[in-house]
Amino acid sequence: MFESAELGHSIDKATFKKEEPLIRAALQEAQFNLKENGKIPVVVLVSGQDGAGKGETINVLYEWMDPRFISTLAFSSPTDEERQRPFMWRYWRALPPKGRVGIFAGSWYSSPIHDHIEGRMSMADVDQRIDQINRFEEMLVNEGAIVLKFWFHLTKAGQKRRLRALEKDPKTAWRVTKWNWDRLKTYDKLQEAAGHVLRLSNTPWAPWIIVEGEDDRYRSLTVGKVLLEAIQQRLKDASRQTTPAAHQSLPSIDGKDLLSALKLDQRMTKEAYETELARYQSRLSELVRDPRFKGRSVICAFEGADAAGKGGAIRRIAGALDARDYQIVPVAAPTEEERAQPYLWRFWRHMPRLGRVTIFDRTWYGRVLVERVEGFCADADWLRAYSEINDFEHELSDAGAIVVKFWLQISKEEQLKRFKEREKIEFKRFKITDEDWRNREKWDAYHLAICEMVERTSTGDAPWTLIEANNKYYARVKILRTLCERVEAALDGKTDEMPEKPKSRKKK
Amino acid sequence: MFESAELGHSIDKATFKKEEPLIRAALQEAQFNLKENGKIPVVVLVSGQDGAGKGETINVLYEWMDPRFISTLAFSSPTDEERQRPFMWRYWRALPPKGRVGIFAGSWYSSPIHDHIEGRMSMADVDQRIDQINRFEEMLVNEGAIVLKFWFHLTKAGQKRRLRALEKDPKTAWRVTKWNWDRLKTYDKLQEAAGHVLRLSNTPWAPWIIVEGEDDRYRSLTVGKVLLEAIQQRLKDASRQTTPAAHQSLPSIDGKDLLSALKLDQRMTKEAYETELARYQSRLSELVRDPRFKGRSVICAFEGADAAGKGGAIRRIAGALDARDYQIVPVAAPTEEERAQPYLWRFWRHMPRLGRVTIFDRTWYGRVLVERVEGFCADADWLRAYSEINDFEHELSDAGAIVVKFWLQISKEEQLKRFKEREKIEFKRFKITDEDWRNREKWDAYHLAICEMVERTSTGDAPWTLIEANNKYYARVKILRTLCERVEAALDGKTDEMPEKPKSRKKK
Repeated sequence: MFESAELGHSIDKATFKKEEPLIRAALQEAQFNLKENGKIPVVVLVSGQDGAGKGETINVLYEWMDPRFISTLAFSSPTDEERQRPFMWRYWRALPPKGRVGIFAGSWYSSPIHDHIEGRMSMADVDQRIDQINRFEEMLVNEGAIVLKFWFHLTKAGQKRRLRALEKDPKTAWRVTKWNWDRLKTYDKLQEAAGHVLRLSNTPWAPWIIVEGEDDRYRSLTVGKVLLEAIQQRLKDASRQTTPAAHQSLPSIDGKDLLSALKLDQRMTKEAYETELARYQSRLSELVRDPRFKGRSVICAFEGADAAGKGGAIRRIAGALDARDYQIVPVAAPTEEERAQPYLWRFWRHMPRLGRVTIFDRTWYGRVLVERVEGFCADADWLRAYSEINDFEHELSDAGAIVVKFWLQISKEEQLKRFKEREKIEFKRFKITDEDWRNREKWDAYHLAICEMVERTSTGDAPWTLIEANNKYYARVKILRTLCERVEAALDGKTDEMPEKPKSRKKK
Repeated sequence: MFESAELGHSIDKATFKKEEPLIRAALQEAQFNLKENGKIPVVVLVSGQDGAGKGETINVLYEWMDPRFISTLAFSSPTDEERQRPFMWRYWRALPPKGRVGIFAGSWYSSPIHDHIEGRMSMADVDQRIDQINRFEEMLVNEGAIVLKFWFHLTKAGQKRRLRALEKDPKTAWRVTKWNWDRLKTYDKLQEAAGHVLRLSNTPWAPWIIVEGEDDRYRSLTVGKVLLEAIQQRLKDASRQTTPAAHQSLPSIDGKDLLSALKLDQRMTKEAYETELARYQSRLSELVRDPRFKGRSVICAFEGADAAGKGGAIRRIAGALDARDYQIVPVAAPTEEERAQPYLWRFWRHMPRLGRVTIFDRTWYGRVLVERVEGFCADADWLRAYSEINDFEHELSDAGAIVVKFWLQISKEEQLKRFKEREKIEFKRFKITDEDWRNREKWDAYHLAICEMVERTSTGDAPWTLIEANNKYYARVKILRTLCERVEAALDGKTDEMPEKPKSRKKK
């Protein structure tokens, strides 16, 4: 893997002097076109052996390009806000928006590699993390990003030479500490771990670029040219999907499906409702105050037909909680800053800390519902969303979140009745818009999309609960009961999520 | 101050039952109109004695209003990301956007009050903090916010009664801990400190609303009505400025002013430049690696005529730093999320942690430059910006930031020459836009605005340095030298900023 980076590559001074101004001008132009195009974020990972020129390369990129449209993110120990959230959260929040270059000095690969070398992470866990990373990078590429992963390589002897040279020069001597010399001792270990990780993450959509690190001029020119070509290539060629779209729904042969099978008219009297409501609200209130909940969080996702009663159900959950412990996130059209990021970014930014509850009124499932039905995104985009969402929810639950998802279903007749009622009440009138009436006309298309969504995204980590919602009392009680049961099961450790390591969660 | 909240206010059940649905409907309608109007954020502070119904009031507001457009922020100990930034940063990041209601449970008043009671903050420091808070709230009101500050009051006997009642009810018993009973012992101290703080912060633009806390129905209805009236009032009446605009420039009698006094044509040879550049770059690089810098940060603000060489100067600063330690923030038009917030919000969000450098390419001074000259904001808005900016920079430097501001000035002839040169070079052509040519026509209006800006905002905390920039070499060296000197002086403690307590900064 590292063979061609041990050939003693080098570029002479004269060649470099000739090439440098050309590549500099070309890079600035490419960067300008990238900004104008406004659709492509560039993610550059800078990793490798110590002393192989990671810092120098970043500095060269800043010198050659317009530094105002580059950001560099250095990741050392996570802050406490980061530690309380899933592993990838700190990287999501640092992603460059479209049109800009984000350099990751110390990326999502650093932690698995070093945690493994230092004995904090088993090889099986490393493999699992790399799998997660591969899927994350695939998502980035599918979302339009250029992902360039540089690994700067040095032989052991070369590393020793570099460290000595750095130490000799008074300008760079400060950069060499005992830590660096210690790392030389673990050269072989790092090489071995990195070899394993690089092999597993050498995907067709984001392959590693291994660069020999010893010669400054060779290294700088190589990185500059790779970056330049990647940008030029992508600006020329808009297609980028890693997964060709192939949509195959199960044909409906007997007319039975998940939604049709629901008995929407359930019964519950007002008296029964009030008793049950009080019971589960007080149960929920106790559960979130349970000391064990301090290491967990709840992410509650509400989807449903218009006027199916999402808002009312959310209020009943909220009523059981202390306002300081939860947030309700109403999902509307994405803002400008959200549109400049991958689809799931706007949900990641609302992820709660441990001990908190976040309720989403409409969710990330918009992609496979309204965006699919209305044609707001390409087929390939909503098709890949199923597995992206499953990955997303898995990451959440892996970090201690209890993900509870509700689909509220009412009959077409019940919806009509509710629309008309709403139009009569002054302060509820704003709840009915022309869009609601239009959505109603697409009832059947939504029906199909919902069934497929539930089939493809009801996982052990994050199962869907379908709610028969013609009777609001019944619906609210079922929702509260389900939520209580899920939280209770999670606190008791009776959960399907990653049963092999129930302890890791409690440590967090 | 608390007298009228000790009258034993109460509302009987029947009245409450009659009033509740009315106020609920009216609040939801007001909230809907607020959202449609989209210009007014509502900031509600919930403070007061323990057991006076703070939590209950928040819950009632959630029940009565549409909870999807309310957020509640609870502030306990700051996170490490917050501790590394100025005191107000955590509140800035939590401000509700326009059209939404943000409830602050434990606001910017909690920390000065409790730090004082617990002996961590002298009364003089409390007074200083309150002064800062008053100015912050004035800014919020001027930016269009409704600021409602509720203080829930109980007599000592009343507090004892409430705690007992809460303890008796199994549903609420969990909320009463030893901590609450201990607080009863400090009732008098809190009452005294709060009295002082409330008196000082009882401003005409954001007065305190003191509500008797013992009777649930009275308390809820009072808060609901105050909130309702405040929203209705503001929706009816758009005017809101606390400070009437009165613009009085010093008349120019002898034609002398700060800019005209500059000798723009300074000399420096390329050789001298290269020596000096290397000297100050290496000096700067040492300074930011000085252990004392770990408790400081640098905020570098660049303003200047078009083509005056800001970009080139920024690159030379960046060239002396490790890419992992600085960020360059190019300031362009505000995004949608930024437009939904007070003017300074988009700069606050980029404030560096301690040990880091942030370079702004154009800054918060846009308000008193381009926005003033082009008429993008009302006179009253840019007029109040001078003192808002001074407050802002004072807060930064008070928290350890070294604020260094440069104005780069070139002659009109030099600008023309540079515009024409840029148009010739392929990858620099994008740097010249029609806007640049238009700005050039307003040279004199800018001249006036710049002089006034420097006069009004060159403070001991954050002085302006004017740069004679016809010669790029000279300009860059002067900038680097000034920056080094400022950082050096700050690290040595030779600074004008709050000389009375130099120690407080090092603790951070």
